[in-house]
Amino acid sequence: MSDTLLVAGGRVLRPDLTVERADVLASRETGRIVDVGDDLDRSPDERLDATGALVVPGLVNAHTHVAMTLLRGYADDKPLDAWLREDVWPVEAELRAGDVYAGARLGLVEMIRSGTTLCSDMYFRMDEVCRAVAETGLRARLGRGAVTVGEDEAAAREEVAETVRVAEALDGRADGRVRGAVCPHSLTTVSEARLEQAAAGAREAGLPLHYHANETPAEVEPYTQRGVRPLAFARDRGLLQAGDLLAHCVHVDDEEIGLLAETGAAVLHCPAANAKLASGIAPVARLRDAGVRVALGTDGPASNNDLDSFDELRDAAMVGKLAAEDAGAVPAAAAVELATAAGADALGFDAGRVAAGRLADLAVVDLSDPHLVPEHDLVSHLAYAARGSDVRHTVCGGRVLMRDRELLVVDEAAVVREAREHARALVDRAG
Amino acid sequence: MSDTLLVAGGRVLRPDLTVERADVLASRETGRIVDVGDDLDRSPDERLDATGALVVPGLVNAHTHVAMTLLRGYADDKPLDAWLREDVWPVEAELRAGDVYAGARLGLVEMIRSGTTLCSDMYFRMDEVCRAVAETGLRARLGRGAVTVGEDEAAAREEVAETVRVAEALDGRADGRVRGAVCPHSLTTVSEARLEQAAAGAREAGLPLHYHANETPAEVEPYTQRGVRPLAFARDRGLLQAGDLLAHCVHVDDEEIGLLAETGAAVLHCPAANAKLASGIAPVARLRDAGVRVALGTDGPASNNDLDSFDELRDAAMVGKLAAEDAGAVPAAAAVELATAAGADALGFDAGRVAAGRLADLAVVDLSDPHLVPEHDLVSHLAYAARGSDVRHTVCGGRVLMRDRELLVVDEAAVVREAREHARALVDRAG
Repeated sequence: MSDTLLVAGGRVLRPDLTVERADVLASRETGRIVDVGDDLDRSPDERLDATGALVVPGLVNAHTHVAMTLLRGYADDKPLDAWLREDVWPVEAELRAGDVYAGARLGLVEMIRSGTTLCSDMYFRMDEVCRAVAETGLRARLGRGAVTVGEDEAAAREEVAETVRVAEALDGRADGRVRGAVCPHSLTTVSEARLEQAAAGAREAGLPLHYHANETPAEVEPYTQRGVRPLAFARDRGLLQAGDLLAHCVHVDDEEIGLLAETGAAVLHCPAANAKLASGIAPVARLRDAGVRVALGTDGPASNNDLDSFDELRDAAMVGKLAAEDAGAVPAAAAVELATAAGADALGFDAGRVAAGRLADLAVVDLSDPHLVPEHDLVSHLAYAARGSDVRHTVCGGRVLMRDRELLVVDEAAVVREAREHARALVDRAG
Repeated sequence: MSDTLLVAGGRVLRPDLTVERADVLASRETGRIVDVGDDLDRSPDERLDATGALVVPGLVNAHTHVAMTLLRGYADDKPLDAWLREDVWPVEAELRAGDVYAGARLGLVEMIRSGTTLCSDMYFRMDEVCRAVAETGLRARLGRGAVTVGEDEAAAREEVAETVRVAEALDGRADGRVRGAVCPHSLTTVSEARLEQAAAGAREAGLPLHYHANETPAEVEPYTQRGVRPLAFARDRGLLQAGDLLAHCVHVDDEEIGLLAETGAAVLHCPAANAKLASGIAPVARLRDAGVRVALGTDGPASNNDLDSFDELRDAAMVGKLAAEDAGAVPAAAAVELATAAGADALGFDAGRVAAGRLADLAVVDLSDPHLVPEHDLVSHLAYAARGSDVRHTVCGGRVLMRDRELLVVDEAAVVREAREHARALVDRAG
């Protein structure tokens, strides 16, 4: 066995969410896990110490706008519509390529530091995001958001054509770690004809759609006024198929839950952003009970305000119980699954499980800090007590991205410095 | 000026929640802040580096059962009543003094590591909790919980007499850092006559009451069936006065909110535990708008599952918006106030503000990690992005409890080891 990484001395969270003492052997050549067990290769090319730690699948952040780190804390405590119109969009109008690159690098470094190895991102200037993903060694499904409200027919058509082109151009980049998605922004910010164009483009390209749906009542009303639920409309126009990614789905009724389950489209649940913008709580327990695939996202760091998937996991378990009025809803194991296997499945990557043959995307969680003592139940700890700063090492495709909390892929201090500079200049330009 | 500590080189969160570049000079003799500003004493006896950090008041965890660290993750995803009867109480029946001491030490270390300097604790064997508080250098209001359901009249009377005696005995311990509270467990687990006895005892001792109130609908119904709201009953029987501490108050109506505001009793809001047990969301925005004093607590670490007040702060801001259906509710500044000044005021300590004359209880929050970049608004960061692991130093009464994340007051490794041993033995005994 050549070119191997051994994660040794710890315990491992297996796909059935049991915990066992085991090492993990990965091939850096194929990027996959070769074996999980005791007494594996004793002369690996590289070794990571997992003593006193738990090896878990790298977490999956299934919906974000990572470059928005530059706007973290810029405007808070406002509802979605006002926040976008008064604060976010005016600044985004000033965004330059270098800003997106700097903001994406900052966010991806934050993800690595909190154990996330796979994300799905929708934004502008996606070449820059892709470049940052390639450099930082993460895995991602990327797409350019297309908004057509207020545009004339020709411009709208070109806007949607562009998201299809970008999805195709991105697909397969970074040695295959990047895949593409066609991203009409939402069911209310893109016209019906353009939504159909996006769907046709996605199917032709063999790529999924990724869009916002039913985040607020204001996104549902234009449809119900016409006597149709938004997701019934989406299904009828070819926008709801297996592999498609629907962010939020806070305000869905039983009919829509049924459509999601039937089609195999995935819900990207963003509990923190939905709380922060007072959008409501997605009915996660009902969605899962109905057989809907649900993944977990932080949404953009300006409405969260971080990219720590451990926070999101905990939030999903917590608000899921509130929504269901049932302390047994979204139990610890379900929350962990949302952020690992279910996330990877939704995004279409063969990851999310520590098992031979799977992609070697791993987070090694240190268990020594007082807040993770004692150890009655490590799955409970992952859901309710661990935080991103407990991650000791992060591995993606067998490559070590962070070792002993030191970034190996980029100069973290430079990333932080450049992000500060770009954020300051951007806000200055926006006036 | 003799025996001084200088926290130098950073920025300071002032009582009005503005941020300025300043040093903080504290007297280790009086335990109070001497001055806040530039160019203070250049030859202090001790110096803490706050470069690149924000000096904030030590956080206040106003309601917990700290020794329950031993049951962290022992049983999750169950509603309050079943969780108590099936899991918690059977194990607590086996609790020995040494367990409480070991569990309290673990929890207090966790608090120091996440910047909390003041807590309010209700549990059993409070001598052991007090000993742990004394050793770890924190500040606390402590009381012994009294439950009388199922007891005969004499035993119930003695149970309540004991919580009064313990409150008086604890008051003033640890050089005055410990104050006492009289703790009838709740309005439904203590009989009416014994609640009155507790109130009379508290008034005579000049100490506040601390009890659970209106946490679940099941705690409200026995009262409403008799035509009275629980807090109206509490007011009528002398259980609702300025300084009294009411944990939870999830299910309160307008009349009760008015009574809380009128009397000056404080609500100890525990958003995470209320979500985890699916108890609901306390109407924090409505309480604050009505002029009620609201503080923030983690509740016990078995229903949270950590003691990180930064989590709680974020949760309060997040679920407060959900409850109010208003993204402007519980804004960042309000959440920070809940966990600092309002908490200290509720518990009756002259802390919670970085200002000359106040107790020198401080947390120094490192701002260098990517998740706190850029710096548009540091109050927003405290509410939405910071976590306990960002705390660089913790100071209580001018004494440095943690320096550069190293505990100075106890042997952390020993605390962790002993807690693990006690947790294992306890669960074994409970069978």
